[in-house]
Amino acid sequence: MSGNSIGQNFVVTTFGESHGVALGCIIDGCPPGLELTVEDMQHDLDRRRPGTSRYTTARREPDEVRILSGVFEDKTTGTSIGLLIENTDQRSQDYSNIKDLFRPGHADYTYQQKYGLRDYRGGGRSSARETAMRVAAGAVAKKYLKQVHGIEINGYMSQLGPICAESVDLNEVEQNAFFFPDASKLEQLDEYMRDLKKSGDSVGAKITVAATGVPVGLGEPVFDRLDADIAHALMGINAVKGVEIGDGFGVVTQKGSEGRDLMSPAGFESNHAGGVLGGISSGQPIVAHIALKPTSSISVPGQSMTAQGTTADVVTKGRHDPCVGIRAVPIAEAMLAIVLMDHLLRHRAQNQDVVSETPVIGMK
Amino acid sequence: MSGNSIGQNFVVTTFGESHGVALGCIIDGCPPGLELTVEDMQHDLDRRRPGTSRYTTARREPDEVRILSGVFEDKTTGTSIGLLIENTDQRSQDYSNIKDLFRPGHADYTYQQKYGLRDYRGGGRSSARETAMRVAAGAVAKKYLKQVHGIEINGYMSQLGPICAESVDLNEVEQNAFFFPDASKLEQLDEYMRDLKKSGDSVGAKITVAATGVPVGLGEPVFDRLDADIAHALMGINAVKGVEIGDGFGVVTQKGSEGRDLMSPAGFESNHAGGVLGGISSGQPIVAHIALKPTSSISVPGQSMTAQGTTADVVTKGRHDPCVGIRAVPIAEAMLAIVLMDHLLRHRAQNQDVVSETPVIGMK
Amino acid sequence: MSGNSIGQNFVVTTFGESHGVALGCIIDGCPPGLELTVEDMQHDLDRRRPGTSRYTTARREPDEVRILSGVFEDKTTGTSIGLLIENTDQRSQDYSNIKDLFRPGHADYTYQQKYGLRDYRGGGRSSARETAMRVAAGAVAKKYLKQVHGIEINGYMSQLGPICAESVDLNEVEQNAFFFPDASKLEQLDEYMRDLKKSGDSVGAKITVAATGVPVGLGEPVFDRLDADIAHALMGINAVKGVEIGDGFGVVTQKGSEGRDLMSPAGFESNHAGGVLGGISSGQPIVAHIALKPTSSISVPGQSMTAQGTTADVVTKGRHDPCVGIRAVPIAEAMLAIVLMDHLLRHRAQNQDVVSETPVIGMK
Amino acid sequence: MSGNSIGQNFVVTTFGESHGVALGCIIDGCPPGLELTVEDMQHDLDRRRPGTSRYTTARREPDEVRILSGVFEDKTTGTSIGLLIENTDQRSQDYSNIKDLFRPGHADYTYQQKYGLRDYRGGGRSSARETAMRVAAGAVAKKYLKQVHGIEINGYMSQLGPICAESVDLNEVEQNAFFFPDASKLEQLDEYMRDLKKSGDSVGAKITVAATGVPVGLGEPVFDRLDADIAHALMGINAVKGVEIGDGFGVVTQKGSEGRDLMSPAGFESNHAGGVLGGISSGQPIVAHIALKPTSSISVPGQSMTAQGTTADVVTKGRHDPCVGIRAVPIAEAMLAIVLMDHLLRHRAQNQDVVSETPVIGMK
Repeated sequence: MSGNSIGQNFVVTTFGESHGVALGCIIDGCPPGLELTVEDMQHDLDRRRPGTSRYTTARREPDEVRILSGVFEDKTTGTSIGLLIENTDQRSQDYSNIKDLFRPGHADYTYQQKYGLRDYRGGGRSSARETAMRVAAGAVAKKYLKQVHGIEINGYMSQLGPICAESVDLNEVEQNAFFFPDASKLEQLDEYMRDLKKSGDSVGAKITVAATGVPVGLGEPVFDRLDADIAHALMGINAVKGVEIGDGFGVVTQKGSEGRDLMSPAGFESNHAGGVLGGISSGQPIVAHIALKPTSSISVPGQSMTAQGTTADVVTKGRHDPCVGIRAVPIAEAMLAIVLMDHLLRHRAQNQDVVSETPVIGMK
Repeated sequence: MSGNSIGQNFVVTTFGESHGVALGCIIDGCPPGLELTVEDMQHDLDRRRPGTSRYTTARREPDEVRILSGVFEDKTTGTSIGLLIENTDQRSQDYSNIKDLFRPGHADYTYQQKYGLRDYRGGGRSSARETAMRVAAGAVAKKYLKQVHGIEINGYMSQLGPICAESVDLNEVEQNAFFFPDASKLEQLDEYMRDLKKSGDSVGAKITVAATGVPVGLGEPVFDRLDADIAHALMGINAVKGVEIGDGFGVVTQKGSEGRDLMSPAGFESNHAGGVLGGISSGQPIVAHIALKPTSSISVPGQSMTAQGTTADVVTKGRHDPCVGIRAVPIAEAMLAIVLMDHLLRHRAQNQDVVSETPVIGMK
Repeated sequence: MSGNSIGQNFVVTTFGESHGVALGCIIDGCPPGLELTVEDMQHDLDRRRPGTSRYTTARREPDEVRILSGVFEDKTTGTSIGLLIENTDQRSQDYSNIKDLFRPGHADYTYQQKYGLRDYRGGGRSSARETAMRVAAGAVAKKYLKQVHGIEINGYMSQLGPICAESVDLNEVEQNAFFFPDASKLEQLDEYMRDLKKSGDSVGAKITVAATGVPVGLGEPVFDRLDADIAHALMGINAVKGVEIGDGFGVVTQKGSEGRDLMSPAGFESNHAGGVLGGISSGQPIVAHIALKPTSSISVPGQSMTAQGTTADVVTKGRHDPCVGIRAVPIAEAMLAIVLMDHLLRHRAQNQDVVSETPVIGMK
Repeated sequence: MSGNSIGQNFVVTTFGESHGVALGCIIDGCPPGLELTVEDMQHDLDRRRPGTSRYTTARREPDEVRILSGVFEDKTTGTSIGLLIENTDQRSQDYSNIKDLFRPGHADYTYQQKYGLRDYRGGGRSSARETAMRVAAGAVAKKYLKQVHGIEINGYMSQLGPICAESVDLNEVEQNAFFFPDASKLEQLDEYMRDLKKSGDSVGAKITVAATGVPVGLGEPVFDRLDADIAHALMGINAVKGVEIGDGFGVVTQKGSEGRDLMSPAGFESNHAGGVLGGISSGQPIVAHIALKPTSSISVPGQSMTAQGTTADVVTKGRHDPCVGIRAVPIAEAMLAIVLMDHLLRHRAQNQDVVSETPVIGMK
């Protein structure tokens, strides 16, 4: 299987370029009988959609998804689900000046070398626009996980540049344009972003995504551990440079006596492990963090080179996010949902006969 | 494909438990004509092997690998390569007391719930002993990468608990029992580890692994990006809780004007990206960091529960590593080698016809 | 990977139902730089298209394919190719009477049991209409195989009910509505089909498909042999009940001294093997035959049952092919092309370094 | 995944050459809790084993399989199962004379061209000896299918050269050395084989394999149909040149009114379809037939060529089966078992929620 698919039993395959005709995906392996309409996907698509606040790119796409197959009388049929979003706001002319230019920090140079040619319009396939389809597919997974198993997935921005969330109130997350869980920092964030836009620069971010209600047992040792597959899915989001599960890099300075989650019949005492033990979900919340680099599309000039091998200065004009991390929240949720969905189905395949006589414990 | 395989064109599948009869693996997809003998694998197996210093577990296994197939007259034939290591030092009796006990921080509880039963001897399949086969398979990949493409892979410990390497001299790495690249810290490390052993505790670590000589173009967007597959492979190592590519979590506070790697016909000016742009190798060194948690097998008592749902205190006796990160260096190298090998073959499959007219640039 | 994909390095994934909104597919792994326009696919789509002669169903679909991604300035970019055909002639009303009826010989009953619900309109996903996307994807493979490697793929009807082709002239195949290679039988075929339509019945057929110019070496022992993958791809065509390679079932009564293809430096003396030895292409033409059952959609009444468990008589009215084998010729070609393309890329991945010193021989 | 694996949820990967150190396989995805000992595999291994009658090769291998992992206290643990058979009767010297010779009808030439080198001893990886591991893995699948689902798999020889079974009595199959279900033909078979051996020639065969008790619903349209995956698995057996499901090539001359299996609430009236409708099992017995070519290893001289490009005459001496079809019966059973097992697990993954309200019908 080539690189545009993810999953083994719940498989999502995407196509589409930033400025092409359309984006699309095929979901293969969705269980039959799930009620599904475009509304189920539109909410998350709107959360990811650009142009919704002054902090994100001004590109405006309605991002209306169509269901082309796999759903009959508003229920999934178990056959492959085709989804499509037409590109409507393409403005190819904005990009013609960078046809032969390799923007630093972008995939221009590597695509050119790998394939010998590339769709240079808006980054082509390497544009984060492709993630719209992941969000749509993730919404299908989310719905199934919630409806059939009570699993809920929530993401938020835990840090934007130097500004950290010091408290986490999930109710706040959808109330502001930053998906920020700490309302006390909103003014500071707003000020920071204004200054950033003025300077023509961009900044990195840290996103946290968590799933609650995950049953014990998901994950396939030794290579397709749940945490390994989460790392694969999250590192595959544009601009992500780091992935942590639970305490993440905090474990480096931990002692064994500090970092292990003690347990009793009443439950786990803590969740340093982020809900995964030996690659298998423990029944505690799955918690992951990702680091997103600042976009390189900034108006601060930067040295680069051309396809002809000459030096050039790059100044990105046009519509770009000063912090791509903001819109990554629904994408991270979608990827976590897709991984959990896939592992839920994989687990079923092998372990349907299992009747454990050991009591299942939870978080205290 | 179930969870015991990794790769798509260079596929490694492993079997074996800590205290079972033997460990083994099958390598499927190795190009024919590579000179290969057990010596090529034994060096890395010895680096990973327990019992080589006072800082690691006293379990002694010769870890002698046998080639059972796929090699004829000391050359790979292109057919599947079978490798085997017999377990010789099994001491099952050491573990009988934990048959019904779920050690905190271990996979005991999750395996029990997932499968309904488990091989409790020494962690069974969840033991890091399984990684011996990864090291053997990785050595095959390493040899091919080096011999055919000049790619070299080196790992080292960049941090052990609170002690960071402040300089990196690869020549030092094999000269000490810590794989530490900064000789000035060795005394401090030794003292720290003595204290740690005395206290019966363990500590986390950070490992860095890098590949040089990697050609531009490896990696399959959008899901099987090179960095995503590296994250999958490294997060799949026992005890790993975080993976970074290049600047990793350092990007969170970076500005776009700081973090992008400027480029010119003479090469890249920096390598914040860790050698991957848009999921595709850029020709710069691939650099990844991982965080390993302290082992939970310590003699400091910890609260736990039994399979019968009663409370119990756990004190691990026996042979364990106070810092599992130490022996993870050759494992991380092996996993990176396997991923690069797989992507090299995948890249070939699709892009053999590509003749790029753009000059390839390197690190300044 | 679930069931709607075929291939490992050249992967085709399809979606769409007979009377849904649209059919589509994603091709993942097509090499970059191939010139590709819709015209390259339209020719084969037209060959498969219904309504082109009085011997096939009167359903009329223009079957116009759109390229949605993966092609830039008329060249493939190496990223995933999205293809779409809108359904225009859906007439759902024709089928409402069979909502709860399981037509004998169809997939109605098995889909209902597998999924618990089904799109009953025109067979939904089980309709041969889905094969339009295979033909489109196959055309991409065909073009690459021919242009880059000189491989040509040709199919024809070798037998329709009792009427066998006694000679094979490939030039004749496209000159008649039966894809029949023996012009002397055309009158007989025409008469037979008229009688068949009058009787409201249908008939089976045998199709032969061959590829010339295939290099030695394609095929991956031991499971993904070239012939095994061809069998998988051809048996996966609707209505196919048998697949033969080379002499096929003729080998049952053969002696070893008759059936082996003798060889000399001048070439093979015969091609009983159909171009495959030990699962690997031999350089001779790949030859496969398939048996297609008569469609069960006939106006001769047949006993069946309903979803409610009552008995019912089925009489299929409406637009159906009296011999579905006719339109299967371009489908069989497409499937063979997809398999060869996939194996060509797989072979490259592993064997790029191979320099054989043995002379390649061909067909005398 | 490269070519030495079969299956997606129940994955069997094999290694080993005819005259190498050992044969082995890994079964990944076997449900936990299945009672399993070597005895479960030994029965079928003995059925496949050479040297058991005067009609098969005189090579004698005890073919004793060892379980190396994945089984604890005689139950499968859900982790990967490692199996090993040591080669004991290797006699490499028998084959040294054919080092540079391409035996006609064998894979010598194609392996040489594909890989640039080959293990020429006894056919190396292309030898049917490799199928011993398939039989071992198939026995695990067989046991699970029978014990958990009541599915039984039986194969027999339906034709040897010109001699057809005219009646099928499964009780006879294990009573004779031919796996022949028609005792009235045994004398004729014996005479035929004596003459064949005398002439130094070999002959083809037709094998039938069937599964009863298969539930409705197994098979993944559109590419991984149950019949398509059966065709893949059976065509992948050495020497197989044709695969039929149900009526197979008999459908070519059938009318639609003859070939459809009428149904009523009491069951299906017939089983022309061989238990598969639209790629999904119908609940009727799965019936498949395969054609096996005569071995080319005969003492009748045949023209060939050498690796140096010169002409040579080949006369195979040594130990060979005059009818390789005989020992293919347990292999065909094993492959069918592996496919059914895989599809059973795949079906579960997606369709566990399905509660069909339609009555399941069976064979009248």
